[in-house]
Amino acid sequence: MQSRIFKVGLCQEAAQNGADIIVLPEMFVAPYTRKHMLDYREPLLPDFKTNEKCETAKMLSGLAKSLNKYIIGGSFPQEIEGEERVYNTSLCFNREGDIVAEHRKLHLFDINIPGGVTFYESEYVKPGPPQYSIFETEYCKIGLGICYDIRFPEYALQLVNQGAEMICYPANFALKTGELHFDTLKRARAIDNQVFLMSCGSAINSEDKEVFQSWGHSSVMSPWGKTLCEAAFEETIIYADIDLKEVTEIRQQIMVLNHRRKDLYTLESKI
Amino acid sequence: MQSRIFKVGLCQEAAQNGADIIVLPEMFVAPYTRKHMLDYREPLLPDFKTNEKCETAKMLSGLAKSLNKYIIGGSFPQEIEGEERVYNTSLCFNREGDIVAEHRKLHLFDINIPGGVTFYESEYVKPGPPQYSIFETEYCKIGLGICYDIRFPEYALQLVNQGAEMICYPANFALKTGELHFDTLKRARAIDNQVFLMSCGSAINSEDKEVFQSWGHSSVMSPWGKTLCEAAFEETIIYADIDLKEVTEIRQQIMVLNHRRKDLYTLESKI
Repeated sequence: MQSRIFKVGLCQEAAQNGADIIVLPEMFVAPYTRKHMLDYREPLLPDFKTNEKCETAKMLSGLAKSLNKYIIGGSFPQEIEGEERVYNTSLCFNREGDIVAEHRKLHLFDINIPGGVTFYESEYVKPGPPQYSIFETEYCKIGLGICYDIRFPEYALQLVNQGAEMICYPANFALKTGELHFDTLKRARAIDNQVFLMSCGSAINSEDKEVFQSWGHSSVMSPWGKTLCEAAFEETIIYADIDLKEVTEIRQQIMVLNHRRKDLYTLESKI
Repeated sequence: MQSRIFKVGLCQEAAQNGADIIVLPEMFVAPYTRKHMLDYREPLLPDFKTNEKCETAKMLSGLAKSLNKYIIGGSFPQEIEGEERVYNTSLCFNREGDIVAEHRKLHLFDINIPGGVTFYESEYVKPGPPQYSIFETEYCKIGLGICYDIRFPEYALQLVNQGAEMICYPANFALKTGELHFDTLKRARAIDNQVFLMSCGSAINSEDKEVFQSWGHSSVMSPWGKTLCEAAFEETIIYADIDLKEVTEIRQQIMVLNHRRKDLYTLESKI
């Protein structure tokens, strides 16, 4: 088995350039195939900070602590005891290297576009248990989803109902759907929910063109829906300055969050 | 009082060119100001087909019948007996000139962007009673909202839950919000709900620059989020060929409508 590709240097560079919240892509530890998901799966144990079996969590925790930064750790294939399938799990770490959120991809990417892309994630990934993933920072609350989760407006709305002012989606959109859908959905979730919307996608895998290729195009969008920064297909670091006053202002200006017609529809939490 | 501006000729031209469902803009009968809304209000009476007081409904009904087409009649200020305020009402007519849907704008455009746009629609428009506006044609069910209603994903989702394969929003987005928000939200509602998304906005009012100016930009978007046709600011007719197989296909390919996490959230109707 290939050793995992941890681009620690890129996180260090981002931190040196002033990034305070660092976001990695979905499944950044391996190519996105069934075989790799299963080969690269790791448990998440209580002693992850020191346990060699928890290679990804251990590395990210140590990195967050040494850099004194928040890390939204993309995702990795989490081993589930007694199961064939894995969870697609995103871990968020605070400056002390503690886990402050664990998001397990809720909606799985089962898609069948003849001549485009066919992918049944649910064959090897188990959907996460029902949960709203949100964590507190000294800036604001940050909500968390993974990739295909972005297609469900209800989930983002609920994160905002729980106080999120930023939502982050590590993601690997397919080339076929990325071009038209990823940009639109990121911008729409930002506008509808009046949040900063961060996403981070894997770069093109130019070494192995046979495996699933991600659309990349990491970005940060403002609550107005403006693109603050955006990557293309290649590996890079992008930066955005976040001014949370923009959230407060737009929520006072366009009061969609208060204009819901609760006599017509309500979005209910089931947990 | 100025006589109403009914561009009957444009509907006739569209019909001659093969349009079978004709959509008009929000408040197409008058400039979009408080004064005009109140000056131009009309009742909607059971004998609207012949009653001179129901000028807009009478005209649209006659036009639909004479052209043998569906007309989604933008909207007009509907008089409410015993009230100062009006409804912002959209009437849809079948080929016989009968009303098949009456949508009264549900969410009102109260917005306050210093240096941008300040507008309190609720001061002179009463929100419509809770209702999902949807009507049947020989092609498919068509759902209906007006302008600011598009900002509420819940409403569009519910129209689709009730079987809509097309959603139509007559709209007058403001210049300030149109550029970034209108295009994004139309495309996102099309993608999220896998419907054809039609919208029709008023043209720029070049005769009176002091009144509210609409962003225009009428368009039809496919369930893939592709722009099939789009206007700019000026008065024009745009056409799109709708192939409803695309709705069926995309719903089989990307199964978002079946992938809801009902153990985490549910969208409930309150009526």
